[in-house]
Amino acid sequence: MAEPISTRAIVCRKPIGDGEGWQMETVRLREIEDDELVVRIVASGICHTDVTFGSLTVGTPFTHYPSVKGHEGSGYVERVGPKVTVAQPGDPVLLSYAFCETCAICKAGHPAHCVVSTPMNFLGYDAFFSEDNASETPDLRGGFFSQSSFANWTIVKQHSVVNVKGTVSDADLRVLAPLGCGIQTGSASIVHLTRPGPNDSVLVLGLGGVGLSAIMGAKLQGCTTIIGVDRLDSRLRVARELGATHTIDTSNMDNLDELVKQVQALTDGYGAAVTIEATGAMAIIRKGLAMTRFAGKYVQVGVAPFGEELSFEVFPHMTSGRHIIGTVEGDATPSEFVPKMVAWFKGGRFPVDKLVRLYRAEEWHEAVRDMELGKTVKAVITW
Amino acid sequence: MAEPISTRAIVCRKPIGDGEGWQMETVRLREIEDDELVVRIVASGICHTDVTFGSLTVGTPFTHYPSVKGHEGSGYVERVGPKVTVAQPGDPVLLSYAFCETCAICKAGHPAHCVVSTPMNFLGYDAFFSEDNASETPDLRGGFFSQSSFANWTIVKQHSVVNVKGTVSDADLRVLAPLGCGIQTGSASIVHLTRPGPNDSVLVLGLGGVGLSAIMGAKLQGCTTIIGVDRLDSRLRVARELGATHTIDTSNMDNLDELVKQVQALTDGYGAAVTIEATGAMAIIRKGLAMTRFAGKYVQVGVAPFGEELSFEVFPHMTSGRHIIGTVEGDATPSEFVPKMVAWFKGGRFPVDKLVRLYRAEEWHEAVRDMELGKTVKAVITW
Repeated sequence: MAEPISTRAIVCRKPIGDGEGWQMETVRLREIEDDELVVRIVASGICHTDVTFGSLTVGTPFTHYPSVKGHEGSGYVERVGPKVTVAQPGDPVLLSYAFCETCAICKAGHPAHCVVSTPMNFLGYDAFFSEDNASETPDLRGGFFSQSSFANWTIVKQHSVVNVKGTVSDADLRVLAPLGCGIQTGSASIVHLTRPGPNDSVLVLGLGGVGLSAIMGAKLQGCTTIIGVDRLDSRLRVARELGATHTIDTSNMDNLDELVKQVQALTDGYGAAVTIEATGAMAIIRKGLAMTRFAGKYVQVGVAPFGEELSFEVFPHMTSGRHIIGTVEGDATPSEFVPKMVAWFKGGRFPVDKLVRLYRAEEWHEAVRDMELGKTVKAVITW
Repeated sequence: MAEPISTRAIVCRKPIGDGEGWQMETVRLREIEDDELVVRIVASGICHTDVTFGSLTVGTPFTHYPSVKGHEGSGYVERVGPKVTVAQPGDPVLLSYAFCETCAICKAGHPAHCVVSTPMNFLGYDAFFSEDNASETPDLRGGFFSQSSFANWTIVKQHSVVNVKGTVSDADLRVLAPLGCGIQTGSASIVHLTRPGPNDSVLVLGLGGVGLSAIMGAKLQGCTTIIGVDRLDSRLRVARELGATHTIDTSNMDNLDELVKQVQALTDGYGAAVTIEATGAMAIIRKGLAMTRFAGKYVQVGVAPFGEELSFEVFPHMTSGRHIIGTVEGDATPSEFVPKMVAWFKGGRFPVDKLVRLYRAEEWHEAVRDMELGKTVKAVITW
């Protein structure tokens, strides 16, 4: 029996509400299993998905209280189970998402679309004891995206671990914490999934962390027309810094036909070769194909409301040659894609730091609020 | 002025009806323009698209009477305009589709989705004089797919010409006439557009010339699970000869949930990695995504009725990682893809001859009827 580890963690006791449903607590880790590691978290990005799943009404599918969220963690390995091969104690790691490794979709190289992805990532596994729990059964759900990195120490499954030994400094780990989810999602949607060439125009709808990472991806691909769309001037400005050649502000538009018109004008009337939809807003989604050129790729990255449908006419879709692609995590395999992002960052070609604002873990409430208000693109709490 | 050329041609005077609207006539070619060739047609495949566009009511968009159809021609070059570089008189050629070569979609390598594809392919240009036309203005529309190959001699634009000098015999030209449309469409949808690997399962819905060519493509890719679906036993048998590992007969099914169930059973419950929809029937199309696995590709090849829509739920589409792809001609560029098919055929790996039945040109009426009845997969008339 290893010595028990006590740690601070942000525990979701009930839906976040005005912030009272979550609280910083001292908790205790259970023993690790054979394929698990204890990671000392250095930093953890906050994503809308954390807030969404920590806001759901009790009884909603894939909801669990009490639990610990957090799925964009970085840190150092402290302990490893006997079957762990990915890292040794002391290694710096970036954490990504969960997948089963055994289904046909994982084996075909698409772990982000693993058939048990939803329960694995959103339901996790019991991992922590509340401070007053003297029983032998953990009462706090961890394993959100196999990591629950809203804790200073946590239990991680090895499939979600990317070893970055020898490539990052301690300061890097703080800035790079969000690589494994939002930043991977945006940049891999371009660099891995759709791979536009220099002559292809790229349109990015919604410039949060995902959309801005898609802009960075398009810049890496050398695309000469990169159009960013948002309603916040601050984000349009960051998009231009990151490589957007054109930005469109929708905040004053009466209707979205004006958006379509502007995109058409910027693409010689054809529409974009690649459209990344990162808003999840149905009003934008319904205009997406009209802004995508023939033989172009429309990629649904943004999370649309449950139950909403998109409909298209079959015959013109055939003749258009368009691809309507759904994607999670840009279809990237973290062990391959995260090291690429680290190398681009270290080479000065992937300025993630322009998106990130650091908060102390105790300031998590402020970090969540700033993110929700759009005052920061990517809030990262440090432990 | 070159000596005028008279030729037999199947002229659509009015909608085909019971066959009386079309008739074999003697017509005369106009002079060629700089980018045109006169080709002596050896053989011409008959496709549903010929019959469809020669059956439309006067006044329907993209309808023209009188006209000459035919868009799967092979033959020998007889004359060339001064700007023609693709072939010389005497060269054997296979004819394919029309595209403008100048729009951004053509330049991006997707000529099948050229922005003026529809008018170019379906409206063509005036090319022939009726026998009793003594004026200087041709009165018969040619240029269907820039070729109108239902004629012994015809005027072809050079963009639709693939030179196959040195690679085919005269007998080959008869069998290979349909390469440039239906067979390219099916095989390129697999070999060029979706490129499944040996471990990927392929599902082909509808086993006409296009679907059976997709089966040949899947066999070329080395796919170990190739499922062919049709309601005609004769076609299921050909599919097995061409490489289908499993066939499903829908002729006795009460409803298509049974089809979904059988496909799921053959793919370990996942669905196919690549689904080629080659029926155009909405009842089948609406089941297509359910038969396609996560991160799989659903390809709409079949021509659906105008105005019919397909609708899908946005959030599950995103998490599924599926691609809904529309395609014409399998997104292939004929000058690149047709020579590949010829080489596979000559190497014994692309047995087009199993699909083809030859008719003399005078038997065109019987050839159309046999095709419509499903008595032959690919009717080819020879001149």
